[in-house]
Amino acid sequence: MSRAHRFPARLDVKGGTVDMSHGSGGRAMAQLVEELFIRHLDNAWLRQGNDAADFPPAAGRMVVSTDAHVISPLFFPGGDIGSLAVHGTINDVAMAGATPLYLSASFILEEGFPLRDLERIVAGMAEASRQAAVPVVAGDTKVVERGKGDGVFITTTGIGVVPQGVHIAGDRARPGDAILLSGTIGDHGVAVMSCREHLAFETEVRSDSAPLHGLVARMVEVAPGIRCLRDPTRGGLATTLNELATQSGVGMLVEEERIPVAPQVAAACELLGLDPLYVANEGKLVCVCDAADAEHLLSVMRADALGQEAAIIGHVVADAQDLVQMRTAFGGHRIIDRLAGEQLPRIC
Amino acid sequence: MSRAHRFPARLDVKGGTVDMSHGSGGRAMAQLVEELFIRHLDNAWLRQGNDAADFPPAAGRMVVSTDAHVISPLFFPGGDIGSLAVHGTINDVAMAGATPLYLSASFILEEGFPLRDLERIVAGMAEASRQAAVPVVAGDTKVVERGKGDGVFITTTGIGVVPQGVHIAGDRARPGDAILLSGTIGDHGVAVMSCREHLAFETEVRSDSAPLHGLVARMVEVAPGIRCLRDPTRGGLATTLNELATQSGVGMLVEEERIPVAPQVAAACELLGLDPLYVANEGKLVCVCDAADAEHLLSVMRADALGQEAAIIGHVVADAQDLVQMRTAFGGHRIIDRLAGEQLPRIC
Repeated sequence: MSRAHRFPARLDVKGGTVDMSHGSGGRAMAQLVEELFIRHLDNAWLRQGNDAADFPPAAGRMVVSTDAHVISPLFFPGGDIGSLAVHGTINDVAMAGATPLYLSASFILEEGFPLRDLERIVAGMAEASRQAAVPVVAGDTKVVERGKGDGVFITTTGIGVVPQGVHIAGDRARPGDAILLSGTIGDHGVAVMSCREHLAFETEVRSDSAPLHGLVARMVEVAPGIRCLRDPTRGGLATTLNELATQSGVGMLVEEERIPVAPQVAAACELLGLDPLYVANEGKLVCVCDAADAEHLLSVMRADALGQEAAIIGHVVADAQDLVQMRTAFGGHRIIDRLAGEQLPRIC
Repeated sequence: MSRAHRFPARLDVKGGTVDMSHGSGGRAMAQLVEELFIRHLDNAWLRQGNDAADFPPAAGRMVVSTDAHVISPLFFPGGDIGSLAVHGTINDVAMAGATPLYLSASFILEEGFPLRDLERIVAGMAEASRQAAVPVVAGDTKVVERGKGDGVFITTTGIGVVPQGVHIAGDRARPGDAILLSGTIGDHGVAVMSCREHLAFETEVRSDSAPLHGLVARMVEVAPGIRCLRDPTRGGLATTLNELATQSGVGMLVEEERIPVAPQVAAACELLGLDPLYVANEGKLVCVCDAADAEHLLSVMRADALGQEAAIIGHVVADAQDLVQMRTAFGGHRIIDRLAGEQLPRIC
């Protein structure tokens, strides 16, 4: 974007902070972009230095998804807002059965935020982007005055392509379909809450934040007829099941005993007064498929590092009221409703 | 996304405010999305209610651009943060010579923000989107606690397609090329500053916020060989010219007398101690083209409502130091450097 000789001093990443000039469009901003963002996220698109990054069109339907990330705290066991912003958007694109191809990222920085922390976040984002092989091809930074933001907010947008013959959407669940879950629930929310409340458990709970597009690609390959995929983030598994039930106009019946919850997560939830069904996940998916595909899909999921504890947790039923019900460990039935209000603010 | 009967009460847009539950992923959020966002921005993609919107691939190179909008105040003469977020991103896509096809929008809302104001903003965004014929196909909302944000921040991302044979980029300017400007400079920045400082002028200065993709399409049609296009937003015309000079490794010489500035903008700049060359625009473009195309392009620009005051303001020169120079009204030369620090914070 600019040549080194136009910047007399190097950016003081170690001791400096964000100031309003970093958002002005002038030299200070160019320096921040060059010496911090591009240095970490380096790729041919960003280096072009144009206001838009260009790329070849893909064969097949394309998808776009966007997510603002406002998680607090910015760093938590298992990730940070940078890696989360990459994983979260990759996962939303993957839930359409799509291969994520490109990301864009916009940063809203608060005046006074330490550049050292910003660099850690951008490095976390760059590492997540490299591991997932999905480059950040366009970006933007803005700065707001002290007290008008909260350190860093990041919006990522993802673009992907759907393989031919794949039509995954929330309104395609039908009575008789199987409901699969890729692993334990509640890890992300509990990791963040523990961090926020300064709770220490014997075994540290780490966020499950991870990119699910590899797992999805393997699932779609063996079962292109998958009906629905969704990652149970804000609002947790309960909210995701309710969204799918409502969109498809069906009911769901799940078995409490089959829903995996790590023991330390279950213990933390009891302590914090949380129901793991409503706690956010950032590396799990719910899959609705034809019952005939369920066992094959399950074995594919379990063979993947991110699906080792996958389970068939229930099935879709006809229900005019679109209710999600759970058969409890004691054999009773409980209606799993949507979350009415707030449970865990700023979890993603 | 959800059926009306699941929401006992209607959202109180008239007297209500944003609360933390509107970001929780549960019922309150679904209600906000349904009764405010989707109601205004309604289209088939948003109605799908999936985490990613899908669309057919376009023939030709595609482009993506993203921008966070943190302007203060949220409402200003000539627009609001919603319409600005649409125009700003459409323009960044258009500056690649591309036809903008889709937008995504993410909202970061501050707890306590009046829903009535939010609705005005979303309605402004919807109106801008309709007028530009570029739909908002995917979105996200997050809520942060009172004092951790500033009303509303909006990140928009735009996707577009570049017509065959068009290769517009910041590094293509060559000595001898002509430099065109589509109209008066400084209107947006002065409108926002006047509003912020509660200044009243005899003639109200209005933001020039407008979508430039129609103008660009007509320009590209008559001169597909256009070298560079860029909208002089943050940092103004001076910054844009410097960016292009640096990217292309050339110098530029512009004529002060040919750069149009509205009289009330010039007067306000004097009062506010601003140099209009550095003041943001949101509906103007700079074009670098082969000198042989300049007159034809100028006539096409002047025939467009958004280019009536277009002018050829100077030309590209060979310069090992990539300097931008201006011949002043008095016949002297002045180096137009990049803005070093902050001039107008939160102008977009």
